[in-house]
Amino acid sequence: MSAFVEKLLVAAQRSRSLLCVGLDPDPAQMALPDVAEFNRAIIEATSDLVCAYKPNLAFYEALGVPGLLALEKTLQHIPSHIVTIGDAKRGDVQPSSRFYARAMFDRWGFDAVTVIPYLGSDSLEPFLERPEKGVFVLCRTSNPGAREFQDLELTGLEWERRPLFEFVALRAAAWDTHGNVGLVVGATYPEEIKHLRELCPDMPLLIPGVGAQGGALETAVRYGVDRNGRRAIINASRSVLYASRDRASFAEAARREALRVRDLINETLQREGKPWPR
Amino acid sequence: MSAFVEKLLVAAQRSRSLLCVGLDPDPAQMALPDVAEFNRAIIEATSDLVCAYKPNLAFYEALGVPGLLALEKTLQHIPSHIVTIGDAKRGDVQPSSRFYARAMFDRWGFDAVTVIPYLGSDSLEPFLERPEKGVFVLCRTSNPGAREFQDLELTGLEWERRPLFEFVALRAAAWDTHGNVGLVVGATYPEEIKHLRELCPDMPLLIPGVGAQGGALETAVRYGVDRNGRRAIINASRSVLYASRDRASFAEAARREALRVRDLINETLQREGKPWPR
Repeated sequence: MSAFVEKLLVAAQRSRSLLCVGLDPDPAQMALPDVAEFNRAIIEATSDLVCAYKPNLAFYEALGVPGLLALEKTLQHIPSHIVTIGDAKRGDVQPSSRFYARAMFDRWGFDAVTVIPYLGSDSLEPFLERPEKGVFVLCRTSNPGAREFQDLELTGLEWERRPLFEFVALRAAAWDTHGNVGLVVGATYPEEIKHLRELCPDMPLLIPGVGAQGGALETAVRYGVDRNGRRAIINASRSVLYASRDRASFAEAARREALRVRDLINETLQREGKPWPR
Repeated sequence: MSAFVEKLLVAAQRSRSLLCVGLDPDPAQMALPDVAEFNRAIIEATSDLVCAYKPNLAFYEALGVPGLLALEKTLQHIPSHIVTIGDAKRGDVQPSSRFYARAMFDRWGFDAVTVIPYLGSDSLEPFLERPEKGVFVLCRTSNPGAREFQDLELTGLEWERRPLFEFVALRAAAWDTHGNVGLVVGATYPEEIKHLRELCPDMPLLIPGVGAQGGALETAVRYGVDRNGRRAIINASRSVLYASRDRASFAEAARREALRVRDLINETLQREGKPWPR
C-alpha cells in the first residue's frame, strides 16, 4: 500500500467518513467576500467530518494572483492529517508535465492531483513516479458530455467493443506500480462506477457529482467502495459551500449539510455490512 | 473568419512568419535568473520574427505565485499585435471550465488557449463561445506516448476503424461555429498532420515539437499550412530560449535561432509556391 493510500485510509477512519468537500470558491455565491476567510470557515466547520478536501484550481486561477494567494492560505488551514486533492486535470508532454508535478506536489503541496489520460503514460510519469502522492486519472467524468469520447467503442485484438473509459481504467491499473493511482468516476454514472470497481477492485475512486450535479449518493457509495467499504472518496462541493449565503450562519449550514451527507454515506455502509469499526 | 483568426493572419503577415516561440522558462537552463527579465529579453529579440508567443503555464506554476507574477509581466511585454497562446491544456466539467475560461481569457488576457477534448463538448463550451478567442483542441500530441490513446481504433456505424485523434478533429470541426477552433498536432507525426489538414482544410493548426523534440520542420510546414500557405503556427521553445546560456549574448543567440527557423519555414513556403506577398 502506498503512503498516499495509507494517509487516505487513516484520515477516513479518523473522521469515520468517505466525504470530501470540494473547495470551489465562487464569488457570486460565497457568503463572505474573502476566499481564504470563506474557506477557513468551511474547513473549521467540517474538518472532523471529512477524509479529504479538494480545491479545484479553476476557481482560484479565475481570480488571478490574489486567488492563488488565497489557495496558499487555504492549504495552510487544512489539518495535516486530512488528504488534499488538487483538482487540476493536468497533463502535458513529459518535460512540461514535470513542471506541473512540481507545481502541484512541491509548490502547492497537495497530497494528490487529478490528471488527464489523453496524452498517454509518458505524459503522466512525472506524477506517477511519486509514490507518496496520489494520482487520480480522469476516467468517466460526471458531466453530460462525458459520453462523447469516453463511451466511444474501441476495437482490439483481445477484446471486442470496449469503451474508451474502460481502456483508460485498464491502462491506469497497468501504470500503478506504486499503488498510488486512482480513478475519477462521476456519481452521475452509477453503472460505470460499478463496472470500474469490478475492473479495479483496489484502486481509490474519486467520485464527484453528488449534490448539485444530482448524482445519486447511495448507489455511488454502494458501487464505489472496495470490498471493505473503503477507498471511495465521495465529493460534494456546492451543496456544502453554499448551503446558506447568510454571513452569520453559512459555516453552520455547511457543517449541517456535510454531516447529513457523511451520515447518509455511513448508513449505506452499514446496510452493506461494511460499517466503520468501533 | 473569426476575430481571432484575423489577428493571427495579420500578425503572421506583418512578421512574414509562421513561427511561434514557446515561452517556457526553466530556471535550470535560463541565462538570467529572473523569469520576467529573461522573457522580456527573448521577446525584445524576437518579436519581429514571430506571429505568436506561447507561454506554457506549467513552467510558471512550478515557481508558485512569483512565477505567476512573472507571467503577468511577460504578457505585458508582448506587443499587442502578436497572438498570445496560453498553453494550459485546460478542460473540466462546465461549471469549472467556465472559471478556467475566465482565468485564461479575462485574467491573463490570452488570445487563445489549448484545451483537452476528453470531457466532451459541454466541457469546452465556455471556451468555444468566445468568438474573439482561439481554442486549440489537443488532437495528436507530439510526445512518444501519444499513440497510447490517440491512435486507438474506434468502431462506428458510419465508419470503420478510425483512430481517436481523427474523431476528435471531426468533433472539433463540428463545434467550430464561430471559426475560432484550431487543433494541436505534433510536428513529430508528419503523416498525421497531413491527414488532419485534409480533414480540416481551414483550421489553424498549432504545431509544436520542432527543435528540441526533433520533429521535422519542413514536413510540418508543407503538410500543416492551408491552401494559401497560412494557418499553421510552428512552435519552437527550448531551441530558441536556450540557444545560448551566456548572459551577455543569449538574446542575440535566440534571435539568430528564431531567424533561422523563420527563414527555413519561408523557404519551404516558397518551394511550395505559397510565399508571402511582397
